[in-house]
Amino acid sequence: MKETLHLFKIGGAILEETAQLEQTLAFFSNLPGRKLLVHGGGRRASQLSKTLGIETRMAEGRRITDAATLEVVTMVYAGLENKRVVSMLHAMHCNALGLSGADGNIILAGKRPVGKVDYGLVGDVKKVDTKALSTLLEAGFVPTFCAITHDGQGQLLNTNADAIAAELAIAMAPLYQVHLYYCFEKDGVMANVDNPDSLIAYLDPESYTIHKELGNIHAGMLPKLDNAFRALESHVATVQVGSRKSIANGTATQLLLSTDFPK
Amino acid sequence: MKETLHLFKIGGAILEETAQLEQTLAFFSNLPGRKLLVHGGGRRASQLSKTLGIETRMAEGRRITDAATLEVVTMVYAGLENKRVVSMLHAMHCNALGLSGADGNIILAGKRPVGKVDYGLVGDVKKVDTKALSTLLEAGFVPTFCAITHDGQGQLLNTNADAIAAELAIAMAPLYQVHLYYCFEKDGVMANVDNPDSLIAYLDPESYTIHKELGNIHAGMLPKLDNAFRALESHVATVQVGSRKSIANGTATQLLLSTDFPK
Repeated sequence: MKETLHLFKIGGAILEETAQLEQTLAFFSNLPGRKLLVHGGGRRASQLSKTLGIETRMAEGRRITDAATLEVVTMVYAGLENKRVVSMLHAMHCNALGLSGADGNIILAGKRPVGKVDYGLVGDVKKVDTKALSTLLEAGFVPTFCAITHDGQGQLLNTNADAIAAELAIAMAPLYQVHLYYCFEKDGVMANVDNPDSLIAYLDPESYTIHKELGNIHAGMLPKLDNAFRALESHVATVQVGSRKSIANGTATQLLLSTDFPK
Repeated sequence: MKETLHLFKIGGAILEETAQLEQTLAFFSNLPGRKLLVHGGGRRASQLSKTLGIETRMAEGRRITDAATLEVVTMVYAGLENKRVVSMLHAMHCNALGLSGADGNIILAGKRPVGKVDYGLVGDVKKVDTKALSTLLEAGFVPTFCAITHDGQGQLLNTNADAIAAELAIAMAPLYQVHLYYCFEKDGVMANVDNPDSLIAYLDPESYTIHKELGNIHAGMLPKLDNAFRALESHVATVQVGSRKSIANGTATQLLLSTDFPK
């Protein structure tokens, strides 16, 4: 029987509101056993870019990252947000260890090739050092990742936090029974983003395809769900998408492979 | 026989010039055995403060840190500079793990009491978790600290990098034979800052007092040397102050307790 690893990704409005963040981190702190946090921080980066007169350019929901923008996201994600989260977790007696993917070379990435869009200094995960990460987990640390990686040649890279969470979950799945949570301000995936009663309880690849074809699911959710399904298909034990409350009371959207959909 | 630990503090102009920084990190990377880096980053923080319209206020060479300034130094020290140094070290195959004192609660600090000056959110080191730090060293990581700590209650604190280096060296001295290096752009302590031929080869507490009384030593060096002597008096094996080159060729200023001054 493999040991449990809870892998929490927090993002969206949770990071914007101190009370929300505190409650979410308190819930995370109280999870038993090994755990790992990944956090975003995009909105604060956009604010700082604006203050510094650096234009924020997005393509398909992803930040186009020139050298000046990379400095901003490194400052905000790895500095401001990561250390804020780490210090808050320690106040809750959770032994957080803040990391970027560069630290310990734990997440090695490659600069995304230029396609239809040139994303600039954006990285896609190539390799997770599961041995280094296990060493930290077994030593009692709670690795707390921001969404910055590197290429191993001295270049930092801006990397999507949802993708990092999925890649870490997939890499650790052979070693731990990994439970992956995408935690944000909504209770889960909504069939109609304007109707809070339209929460989808279970989502399998087939129903996901149908919802996508009907244009039901908010466009911003699609990359998150693509990452989430990829994790589930790669032997991550469970994947849930929801808020702290819906995850706590078991009503968050649970992703399922079609074969194990409850009859 | 205790294992050797090389503890390098880099600061000053080294961080401002990429070529200087690369050469210094290459030298550090090639040191044998266990090692640990502490870096400053003050000048870049002052630049960002200026751009953001936040006034930089100093007292006795130390930065007065209000809430806005703490955000700036957390972004610059823990984000920009720490991750830049970490990614450069990995390109040199040095297994750097970037840390603030908050990470793993390794450096617990207390907010400096208000005296003649109210330094604001500035911390003085209270406790180093030598067990956590040893775990990281023994796992093959090269801890790479920026000058941010926390109070354990969720408050980050701006902390002098020279003091952090001394406190880490003192705390680790019972476990390792610690060699402490204060590495900056000058070859060592100068008896006359305007005369490059006035390098002081050996400095003991008595000669330090005389140089201070004569006003020979640059004021900015005094807190560094006070920290350095404190480390030496607390069983740190050797303490040197100099440049990469003078440290490499053995001509950096070596601090000595008067009892072991070469006859």
